Amino acid sequence: MSERQIQILEAAVRVIAQDGVRGLRIEKLAAEAGVSTALIYYHFKDRPGVVRAALEHINHRAQSYTGAAMADEAARARLEGLLLLELQDTGQVRETSIAWGELRASAIFDTDLREPLRTTTDAWNTDIESLIRRAQDEGAVDTAIDTAAAAERLTALVEGLSERWHTHSITLDRARELLTDAIHLELDREVRGTRPPA
Amino acid sequence: MSERQIQILEAAVRVIAQDGVRGLRIEKLAAEAGVSTALIYYHFKDRPGVVRAALEHINHRAQSYTGAAMADEAARARLEGLLLLELQDTGQVRETSIAWGELRASAIFDTDLREPLRTTTDAWNTDIESLIRRAQDEGAVDTAIDTAAAAERLTALVEGLSERWHTHSITLDRARELLTDAIHLELDREVRGTRPPA
Repeated sequence: MSERQIQILEAAVRVIAQDGVRGLRIEKLAAEAGVSTALIYYHFKDRPGVVRAALEHINHRAQSYTGAAMADEAARARLEGLLLLELQDTGQVRETSIAWGELRASAIFDTDLREPLRTTTDAWNTDIESLIRRAQDEGAVDTAIDTAAAAERLTALVEGLSERWHTHSITLDRARELLTDAIHLELDREVRGTRPPA
Repeated sequence: MSERQIQILEAAVRVIAQDGVRGLRIEKLAAEAGVSTALIYYHFKDRPGVVRAALEHINHRAQSYTGAAMADEAARARLEGLLLLELQDTGQVRETSIAWGELRASAIFDTDLREPLRTTTDAWNTDIESLIRRAQDEGAVDTAIDTAAAAERLTALVEGLSERWHTHSITLDRARELLTDAIHLELDREVRGTRPPA
């Protein structure tokens, strides 16, 4: 992807985070990105093309801010870090999170978004599940838990809490506290439940 | 509230579930409800007035389908029933759930919706928390758990799973299975964790 295409998609994420997917007009995007509308049509064909590309771009962005930073940590610490990183009040995380939530909400009405959304969601679940398995190998998570179910629940909870955070139904601190305890519940349950009597 | 007002709000929920909050136009709503636009303005003042009233109406609707049916059951069974009832493929539940999700998503951009959304969310959390406490009194849930946190996590998970269901990122059966296990994890953890040695 060219630098110019990335520039357009970065602007698209900003516009979606500000006005929603349904507020994304090509003229507005062109102004925000500082390019012509013709260039946008040239690279992304049409408005649905821009929205789909923005969805994929958000996914790459999220991977970049959640990726390299903790590569050397133990799997359990990375897992907690990755999930909690989604609930963070820095400009880019907040913008990405709002845009991602808005794309999810739009996919209820815009059926073209469903397949890329599902692919992206599955990829996220698989990443989290892989980390849980690695943490199991490292002895930091009990081997009896259903790793796929734990990953799906934790990512769905992140989405539910993010929406409450962005609508001010919950404070960011409370959302992080609830998520931290959820990780503990998901990953440490059998360790405690099957602890041999002292 | 008059029967005519209810008729208008029922139509509003249908339109929101079909086209989103941002697709709700007064002309369209009038056609759907079979009333004049003047009558809608008379009862609800303006479009934001309709949207806020629809949000409250959805809340009442949800209470009606989750309320009376299980009044005689034990608190634990009611609690599980109430939460799982939100993930059900019947016309009214599905429509209510889509409209409720769409109102949540809209409140990110429409700040006027935040306060009624927060009130409604808090009321739901409090209802679930009360049932958890009653289940504790009945000996069906350990007394050591943080009831407020468990309620908040379970309702946020219902919202996260509902959105995945409506966007076809997850099947309804899988969503129900994940929620059932989450309830078990939240409510039975300390019971197992502190079980005395045999």
